[in-house]
Amino acid sequence: MIKLEIWVEFASTYSYLTVSRAEAVLREACVPFFWHPFLLGPIFRDKGLESSPFVLDPVKGSYMWRDIERRAARLGLPFVRPKVFPANGLVAARIMTAALDQPWCGAFARAVFSAQFARGADISDAFVLAEALAACGAEPAYWLERAGQDETKARLRTATDQARDLGILGAPSFLVGDEVFWGDDRLGDAVAWALEAD
Amino acid sequence: MIKLEIWVEFASTYSYLTVSRAEAVLREACVPFFWHPFLLGPIFRDKGLESSPFVLDPVKGSYMWRDIERRAARLGLPFVRPKVFPANGLVAARIMTAALDQPWCGAFARAVFSAQFARGADISDAFVLAEALAACGAEPAYWLERAGQDETKARLRTATDQARDLGILGAPSFLVGDEVFWGDDRLGDAVAWALEAD
Repeated sequence: MIKLEIWVEFASTYSYLTVSRAEAVLREACVPFFWHPFLLGPIFRDKGLESSPFVLDPVKGSYMWRDIERRAARLGLPFVRPKVFPANGLVAARIMTAALDQPWCGAFARAVFSAQFARGADISDAFVLAEALAACGAEPAYWLERAGQDETKARLRTATDQARDLGILGAPSFLVGDEVFWGDDRLGDAVAWALEAD
Repeated sequence: MIKLEIWVEFASTYSYLTVSRAEAVLREACVPFFWHPFLLGPIFRDKGLESSPFVLDPVKGSYMWRDIERRAARLGLPFVRPKVFPANGLVAARIMTAALDQPWCGAFARAVFSAQFARGADISDAFVLAEALAACGAEPAYWLERAGQDETKARLRTATDQARDLGILGAPSFLVGDEVFWGDDRLGDAVAWALEAD
């Protein structure tokens, strides 16, 4: 069966909505999936944007916070606006990159997104990441060390280059075959595409 | 019952998807609605954008055309990329503004959007607009003249100012009470909000 790739960025509000339910939705639909952490910062900088479009355009930012609040409520997810936005999700993304073959990889992503958007924590804080690892039964010191290895850093850079080459504009995005679907609100379309492609 | 306002811009691809089904969806849901044609150009210019974000950012533009193609297919709508994008929808918006109290107002919008996105016509052409009016049983010469009246022009300018004041960022947008929902993919959320607000 065709696989579905979930491209997520740890600073992304809409990625919180997706990460919280994607594994359940995809398992229910029997669609095989793979996580793809990447960084949006370099893609924004290519366009001359020095921060998130939600920061650079305050009207768009205000809309997004209200939209997220409403969508989270509809999904039954707690939501608070974190102290820092956009967060520096570099180390979180490196940990997930190193742990892509671990069974707790999705649970780690959920724990980090919940820390940020359900409790308002700053996910650039190694203690927050250590807590998320421990909550998944993973050894924090080992995985924080793996995150800092050159091989992990290179893999995350490669993922970000791939996102750019695929024309990925934001997060979350879903890749099914050659088709990119952008936005939490396209999860259903991406799942339908995967099911129909078979 | 709380009403739902549908804010549309005639050059907007995603407005095509909404205009094609909104009346049917809202009648089925028994939600009272009002059309609100407005212009995005002045709102984009406020931000220093000289054209549509889909033209200024070619990667975003490519994504949008593919997304529209897929979404139109899913809705069973024909779709072709029009020769001119973004179209100059000024006269179309003025006609709809003058005709908001006419029973064929929604049918006129559908006819213009279909001319543009199902057949590729240039909707700045008065002949295309006359055909759309005639297809609704309206008198083309009369309504084209009404479109050019100062009162109509002023009403459309006021609608665009209202959109800006509401923080409307793009089209379509839906207004339910004080809540703005942006994007064709938020039609369902807007309808649910209207139903739950009662």
